[in-house]
Amino acid sequence: MYKIAVIPGDGIGPEVTEEGIKVLEALAADSELEFEFEYFNLGADHYLETGELVTDEVKEELAQFDAIYLGAVGDPRVEPGVLEKGILLDLRFTFDQYINLRPIKLLNEDFTPLKDKAGGDIDFTVVRENTEGLYAGFGGVLKKDTPDEVATQEMVNTRKGVERVIRYAFDYVQDRDEVDKVTVCDKRNVLTYAHGLWQRAFDDVAKDYPEVEEDHMLVDAMTMKMVRNPEDFDVVVTCNMFGDIITDLGAEIQGGMGLAVSGNINPDGVSMFEPVHGSAPDIAGEDIANPTAAILAAAMMVEVLGHAEEADRIETAVQQALTDNKTTSDMGGDLSTAEAGDYISSLL
Amino acid sequence: MYKIAVIPGDGIGPEVTEEGIKVLEALAADSELEFEFEYFNLGADHYLETGELVTDEVKEELAQFDAIYLGAVGDPRVEPGVLEKGILLDLRFTFDQYINLRPIKLLNEDFTPLKDKAGGDIDFTVVRENTEGLYAGFGGVLKKDTPDEVATQEMVNTRKGVERVIRYAFDYVQDRDEVDKVTVCDKRNVLTYAHGLWQRAFDDVAKDYPEVEEDHMLVDAMTMKMVRNPEDFDVVVTCNMFGDIITDLGAEIQGGMGLAVSGNINPDGVSMFEPVHGSAPDIAGEDIANPTAAILAAAMMVEVLGHAEEADRIETAVQQALTDNKTTSDMGGDLSTAEAGDYISSLL
Ligand SMILES: CC(C)[C@H](C(=O)O)[C@@H](O)C(=O)O
Ligand SMILES: CC(C)[C@H](C(=O)O)[C@@H](O)C(=O)O
Repeated sequence: MYKIAVIPGDGIGPEVTEEGIKVLEALAADSELEFEFEYFNLGADHYLETGELVTDEVKEELAQFDAIYLGAVGDPRVEPGVLEKGILLDLRFTFDQYINLRPIKLLNEDFTPLKDKAGGDIDFTVVRENTEGLYAGFGGVLKKDTPDEVATQEMVNTRKGVERVIRYAFDYVQDRDEVDKVTVCDKRNVLTYAHGLWQRAFDDVAKDYPEVEEDHMLVDAMTMKMVRNPEDFDVVVTCNMFGDIITDLGAEIQGGMGLAVSGNINPDGVSMFEPVHGSAPDIAGEDIANPTAAILAAAMMVEVLGHAEEADRIETAVQQALTDNKTTSDMGGDLSTAEAGDYISSLL
Repeated sequence: MYKIAVIPGDGIGPEVTEEGIKVLEALAADSELEFEFEYFNLGADHYLETGELVTDEVKEELAQFDAIYLGAVGDPRVEPGVLEKGILLDLRFTFDQYINLRPIKLLNEDFTPLKDKAGGDIDFTVVRENTEGLYAGFGGVLKKDTPDEVATQEMVNTRKGVERVIRYAFDYVQDRDEVDKVTVCDKRNVLTYAHGLWQRAFDDVAKDYPEVEEDHMLVDAMTMKMVRNPEDFDVVVTCNMFGDIITDLGAEIQGGMGLAVSGNINPDGVSMFEPVHGSAPDIAGEDIANPTAAILAAAMMVEVLGHAEEADRIETAVQQALTDNKTTSDMGGDLSTAEAGDYISSLL
């Protein structure tokens, strides 16, 4: 029996997590797995009513769960950064979810904007550092709103923080498929301090994995190769900021946000799973949002909880729904959010 | 009579700048323009022999020129960062070349890795801040090579530095074409200090240009849109680090490094023009490097010196050479570096 904390959040978050839960319940009905869901009311509405983001009490409660299932945070009524830093990043940091795992997998060639790539040509995973770097929140503003204003933001890396994510990537690659290659993506030729540490940590950790091929890409060249030869990647490990950028690019080349999933993982603690797409306030409440990414996030949760086979069943059902064109309009189908979730559930 | 300082630099730099100069001489032979070239021996060889990067004396000499024409710096014999920071970034900073101008223009649809994009669909310019941000070089390493190591790198923005590049973008967009839209690309929802300044500066400057449309993209979403709907962009203004990343992605979607050009511009000082491709040491000296980007960099130099019509003649000749398939092998032709330069010169 798994206890799952659900944070539906803002915008389309509640609609899409509902479908994810529907699918998990369909899976439970036809397997040994059991889930218990508890809802947490966090996000823009709660913040605007109470001024609260995530209180210590809520964090203590969340710590009791086996996993967190998140819809989305973000709302145009709130200043940029308040909800993102105050909820999403705070949870990642509080639960030390130091891995942000983002599979980039082209399921159907019709969805990619790239020429000449067939399903299977794009199949790699980005392991993004998720608790430090430019996301540390360090910095400040001096002489604000004067012509002499200076603003800083610090990229802070610790050897421990970098080593553990690199080690995770090397362990992960060996479980993944036949190819075993880890690419480190950085900007060591300019960020000589912060990414000098990345370089040294990578070279050190790699020594423990002589059977894994090592590779290095500068972040600028990385984006080029992602649109030209994405088949060359297997597992890519990178810092928080660059991971943010290249995983969104990855989401697009694999067919768009409708399919992109993000796991915030602490291998020894509480992990959190979310679709990448965000709150999309413009289409919220219309029952047209695509629940596929939220459903795939639920599948990743099942996998990380230790049930790869059951996770596979969900992924296979999603793939079938795509093939049958039983999708929402953004993917070319004509189903509502709820109907799309129903269809995938019915395949389980 | 324009005095041009030529820094051929490393790897394929000397070969490709030679072709750029050939083309400029062909242009001079058939126009009112005159050029005088002086060579500066800077780069890996010079550094390994003398330990010198760019001395103060050399900087004083360079300050006397109308423009600098650079091949490439970078060499596997030298630690990452030494030549890049010690030559390329030092020149950008010393001459306060605060604009890095990078046109992204698809000349021929065969070259883009994107589906369904015709020549003309991709036509925007990135205006990258070029003298501060994460490139400031601020940071350090504590407890190096111990498990407690911490390394930092600081993104430093000044109001003046950010405002002037945004203002340049707004001025530039109005000279460019019929559409007048400036997109600012940042990560304001996480880098709330450094990119809060960008946000405020952008909103302020935009007030002076009520006739120009304003647009904002988070950097992660930016990369997605660049591969899905690049036709939506006109002029994009962004910080040094993100500019580095998105211009390389832009180079790829417009057909690869073979055509990508970078102008490091100080509107009131000495500007520097370079192909984006870098030194490519693996193919140096073989007369197979593609000189097109270096030739287009020469064209941009001519344009910034105030001769748009003559610059156009070079661009038209390049386009013709592509159409005629008179290119090096990386572009599908079978010419050598020198032959490719000869062909373009012959069209002038
Ligand atoms: C919403 C935002 C703070 C977040 C991030 O930058 O990490 C998102 O873009 C992501 O990638 O999960
Ligand atoms: C060589 C490197 C320092 C440089 C940069 O990062 O600016 C290059 O990538 C560029 O974009 O001109």
